[in-house]
Amino acid sequence: MTITTNPPSDLQARPMKRSDLPAGLWSTRATFRHGQCDPAGIVYTPKFFDVFNQAIEQWFGEALGISYYDIIGARRTGLGYASAAATFFIPCMMGEEIEIVVEVTRIGGKSYTLTLHAFKGEDEALRGQFVTVATALDIHRSIPIPDDIRQALTVYSQGAKR
Amino acid sequence: MTITTNPPSDLQARPMKRSDLPAGLWSTRATFRHGQCDPAGIVYTPKFFDVFNQAIEQWFGEALGISYYDIIGARRTGLGYASAAATFFIPCMMGEEIEIVVEVTRIGGKSYTLTLHAFKGEDEALRGQFVTVATALDIHRSIPIPDDIRQALTVYSQGAKR
Amino acid sequence: MTITTNPPSDLQARPMKRSDLPAGLWSTRATFRHGQCDPAGIVYTPKFFDVFNQAIEQWFGEALGISYYDIIGARRTGLGYASAAATFFIPCMMGEEIEIVVEVTRIGGKSYTLTLHAFKGEDEALRGQFVTVATALDIHRSIPIPDDIRQALTVYSQGAKR
Amino acid sequence: MTITTNPPSDLQARPMKRSDLPAGLWSTRATFRHGQCDPAGIVYTPKFFDVFNQAIEQWFGEALGISYYDIIGARRTGLGYASAAATFFIPCMMGEEIEIVVEVTRIGGKSYTLTLHAFKGEDEALRGQFVTVATALDIHRSIPIPDDIRQALTVYSQGAKR
Repeated sequence: MTITTNPPSDLQARPMKRSDLPAGLWSTRATFRHGQCDPAGIVYTPKFFDVFNQAIEQWFGEALGISYYDIIGARRTGLGYASAAATFFIPCMMGEEIEIVVEVTRIGGKSYTLTLHAFKGEDEALRGQFVTVATALDIHRSIPIPDDIRQALTVYSQGAKR
Repeated sequence: MTITTNPPSDLQARPMKRSDLPAGLWSTRATFRHGQCDPAGIVYTPKFFDVFNQAIEQWFGEALGISYYDIIGARRTGLGYASAAATFFIPCMMGEEIEIVVEVTRIGGKSYTLTLHAFKGEDEALRGQFVTVATALDIHRSIPIPDDIRQALTVYSQGAKR
Repeated sequence: MTITTNPPSDLQARPMKRSDLPAGLWSTRATFRHGQCDPAGIVYTPKFFDVFNQAIEQWFGEALGISYYDIIGARRTGLGYASAAATFFIPCMMGEEIEIVVEVTRIGGKSYTLTLHAFKGEDEALRGQFVTVATALDIHRSIPIPDDIRQALTVYSQGAKR
Repeated sequence: MTITTNPPSDLQARPMKRSDLPAGLWSTRATFRHGQCDPAGIVYTPKFFDVFNQAIEQWFGEALGISYYDIIGARRTGLGYASAAATFFIPCMMGEEIEIVVEVTRIGGKSYTLTLHAFKGEDEALRGQFVTVATALDIHRSIPIPDDIRQALTVYSQGAKR
């Protein structure tokens, strides 16, 4: 095993200010409850992914106008992740509120990427990135992004002007 | 917002075979229960991070010989993440068992990186990467990796020979 | 082991209508996300307790005017459960919204009981009961309910008139 | 609202010793990880229900010889709860291990009751009770307990001799 001692690129990522993001992006708020925090008093890492997933579901309905429950329910279409990642800038504690902003940062043929920025006030506390692949749930194969979802993603991303 | 249409690097990552890993790495097993799976029958993404975190805690005690509870309890030392990421190769379903192998892939001054490989049989189903920073919990500042942890990480990583 | 075949009392409990509750009770709303539901499409039981706990924390701040985080943080006072129970009347599915109403149903010397009613529209879907004991967190011993909490519980319960 | 000041019956329940239980009952072990504990250092209540649910699933396969995943998957049979309750005797902390013993305490026509005792060493730390109703998942109606499950429950409960 080769052990490198250089800091990985994550340690060099730079947090944004809320005002660095383009206008027109949807956002929601979440408060961290004591059950989401560990004995160190800090939010337990998997809970950030939970909160991000919940934000994405809410965003589908409110910003894209498409029911997430319809997609994975009646339509049997999966929106699974090829990868899920988060970079942490500022620790979050019990009782604190964040604002989560959803950005569409890539639209491909069978996959798209969402970047979620979570702010405490003006400062980015953490950032998530979800590479999402459309799949047929019954056969677990990737499929082209369904037309209505592709169109909604495109409209949403065009609505955010830098 | 610039929308690129090239697949991100995650979509090009390649799963390993169990036998590709060096001998001498600690591993544990986990079975996905129905409460960890979503209505699509697939493990809910944040639960992978939960299972990885639980594996890391167990690995501290069993492979490094250091109590994780002591560290974040009495010693008031945080082992928080600068970043946490997972790449998914094969979907995991309710009732399936994985083997999780812990690899130390970087030891820096104040941070180290763990790579967790999760296998279904011989095939890598997903891979996690945790860039971990030692912190003083009372002031939330990064500190040099404590000596006993550094030494245990080094011994562990040297024990795995390719 | 003696096996009885009579239905237990739980099976005979009767759901309420929203209008059966007195006016003046605080309530909050929650939507069940796909990550809270299991492969049967139904909310995973422990998630109801999670949602109830989050409602209680929110209720402390909004209805009692006391920060839950202060209590278990700086004040080192636990509000642990002697028992926690829920009775289920109507299954809850992914995407459904409930309204949770908090009722104080007993105030004792060292403990009090909260009853949480969760409604889908007019119909009670489930009911929770939490027998809560005040404790000194550092010694894990029960203590008299702190005066400010007792007073707030009393005022709250008197504000709800049948 | 009527406020009673008598302690509820829960506060009068008495913990058992491990040796008070009949021989022949299946049990499993669980260690509480830091992500299951809250900032007070104590296991977060909903996590007990999660651990109990996971134990019940494991017990189905290992003690009853019936796959829980088959039941709620291919067979589309729900084993939902009419009620779920826990009584807490001793607080559980990060890093502690419990032994969970499953007892069948009632077999009715469409429902049965499981009692789960969780021990720290010889002492009962908490006790759960799950009134379980067999349902047809597609119509969400209760049905008679399927024959194989009824028989397995009966055999299991007869195998435990006081």
